[in-house]
Amino acid sequence: MRVAVLHAPGDVRVEDRDMPRIEKPTDAVIRLAAACVCGSDLWPYRGIDQVKRPRPMGHEYVGVVEEVGSDVRTVRPGQFVVGSFFASDNICEICRSGYQSFCVHRESATPTGAQAEYARIPLADGTLVATPGMPDDDLVPSLLAASDVLGTGWFAAVAAEAGPGRTVAVVGDGAVGLLGVLAARQLGAERIIAMSRHEPRQQMARDFGATDVVTERGAEGVERIKELTGGLGAHSVIEAVGTQESMMQAVHATRAGGHVGFVGVTHDVTIPGEELFRSGVHLHGGPAPVRRFLPELIDLIGNRTIDPGRVFDLELPLADAAEGYRAMDERRAIKTLLRP
Amino acid sequence: MRVAVLHAPGDVRVEDRDMPRIEKPTDAVIRLAAACVCGSDLWPYRGIDQVKRPRPMGHEYVGVVEEVGSDVRTVRPGQFVVGSFFASDNICEICRSGYQSFCVHRESATPTGAQAEYARIPLADGTLVATPGMPDDDLVPSLLAASDVLGTGWFAAVAAEAGPGRTVAVVGDGAVGLLGVLAARQLGAERIIAMSRHEPRQQMARDFGATDVVTERGAEGVERIKELTGGLGAHSVIEAVGTQESMMQAVHATRAGGHVGFVGVTHDVTIPGEELFRSGVHLHGGPAPVRRFLPELIDLIGNRTIDPGRVFDLELPLADAAEGYRAMDERRAIKTLLRP
Repeated sequence: MRVAVLHAPGDVRVEDRDMPRIEKPTDAVIRLAAACVCGSDLWPYRGIDQVKRPRPMGHEYVGVVEEVGSDVRTVRPGQFVVGSFFASDNICEICRSGYQSFCVHRESATPTGAQAEYARIPLADGTLVATPGMPDDDLVPSLLAASDVLGTGWFAAVAAEAGPGRTVAVVGDGAVGLLGVLAARQLGAERIIAMSRHEPRQQMARDFGATDVVTERGAEGVERIKELTGGLGAHSVIEAVGTQESMMQAVHATRAGGHVGFVGVTHDVTIPGEELFRSGVHLHGGPAPVRRFLPELIDLIGNRTIDPGRVFDLELPLADAAEGYRAMDERRAIKTLLRP
Repeated sequence: MRVAVLHAPGDVRVEDRDMPRIEKPTDAVIRLAAACVCGSDLWPYRGIDQVKRPRPMGHEYVGVVEEVGSDVRTVRPGQFVVGSFFASDNICEICRSGYQSFCVHRESATPTGAQAEYARIPLADGTLVATPGMPDDDLVPSLLAASDVLGTGWFAAVAAEAGPGRTVAVVGDGAVGLLGVLAARQLGAERIIAMSRHEPRQQMARDFGATDVVTERGAEGVERIKELTGGLGAHSVIEAVGTQESMMQAVHATRAGGHVGFVGVTHDVTIPGEELFRSGVHLHGGPAPVRRFLPELIDLIGNRTIDPGRVFDLELPLADAAEGYRAMDERRAIKTLLRP
């Protein structure tokens, strides 16, 4: 089967590999309906994360179950399923508390890669959620988004305690930030300030529910948020970038007692303890427990309340994965969908 | 009137200063019933915080109102009052959200010092809470504790979301940590693990409600907390020290999705973003909004449900303030009460 493999920074090749097979009785093998490139895939692509050996890529996936191991009970061949990037048993104490991305048995959900024709998914019962029936074709991109970027933006909005009466600011206009806007709107936020200087992304943010757009960054961006919030700062701030500047921008744009939800993978970020102490904010984030939200997100997509698949502004055949990476790296595309 | 003044690291002198007077119509002047030395007073005493000019000390206070400004409505001369270290209007949006220590009009509540015979308290209406009547003498230390260390320990326990069914670990066996134990017990925590290697403090922690004591620190301390919590870590961790080691001990001892409440004044602490990301904990703290909790704490003390005044294990006349500082600096005393 075909799979996108990263050989070195900037070097993505679509290659033939063995078909994934059931290795443990808790595994499933799925045939991918669509795959995509994640913002976090750009870290190794850009050489910021080390690439020590050729690595099958992709961890966002939707597809049809081909085969299940003998212990799998909740999904069966022929079902359309959505998963997320960590495999989780969904029954341990940590999973039951809603933190499936920290499951005591967690492992990568896509050891064989998901920018591929087929993928082996461990812990299938805890990880995969079946849709009520075979979804309409036009819903597939949105279901794929649920698997990572939507689930992550949603978690950020929940971590930031977005809700009625709240002003939410969103740092980052990538797919996760844009879907953080969508999540904040669904959660009932009164006012949503998207921070973006890219016109097409500003427009998408507005379509997803942003009421205001701030183009300034850093200290100036913080000042603009303060101006828009009576000098106090936002109640809730979503951090969806993962740099030092974006993290401190998020902390400083939040009012005392407010909440920062951070989901940008923090590379070389250090948070000065005294600044955090003096800010009085709540800080919560990390790898999103997407599994917690999947049933609700699948419902909202199925009944066409939300349309997160719009973040895919470039669609290519899997064979052109390399161009999909390039387009995102150069910010020509927000997010690339690959058709296996 | 007499007041303790810090002239230089290690140099505390009790001196005569002018009687404080009403300077603004929102001020009150109180006659102090008792004063005390705070753990945070040790930072300048030890020269870690700079001492640029002689500084009247003390920011924890209870006393009887002597005089109020013309705009003061809620307290009157003759009432026994409890305040906290920040003066707050208690009516701004931040105060109403429970973060009075970040009041948009906040200022030091004790510009004239509170290790003194008298003190001027700004924003008296928002800052001071009167007790129902003149309290019994033996309740005065507990009411004094409410003014800072109890209020701070309580906030830490609330920030750490201590409550029924939760295991709470407490990093720090100073007065704030010990009263964090007491707060966690009052908030209904199931299990409370005090981290202390000092036998008398261990005993007081047990008296306040600790169910377990861990003597190890750092990585070993974290390992012990994990062992006691099925490998997962505590639900709630109170950080009441403010060093790099204690902060990271708190983060690492908390399970994913759990809560760290930090109130130790963070000096030279930096939190690695990636470690925080990977921990999945909630982090919240800062200068405690003691005012939020005062009415409840005054009730619990008045009806003798709690006895936080026990943290004062050394009582001296105000004239001996220097010895009070020395005893705390050398850890001979947990907390010194000064009688003006």
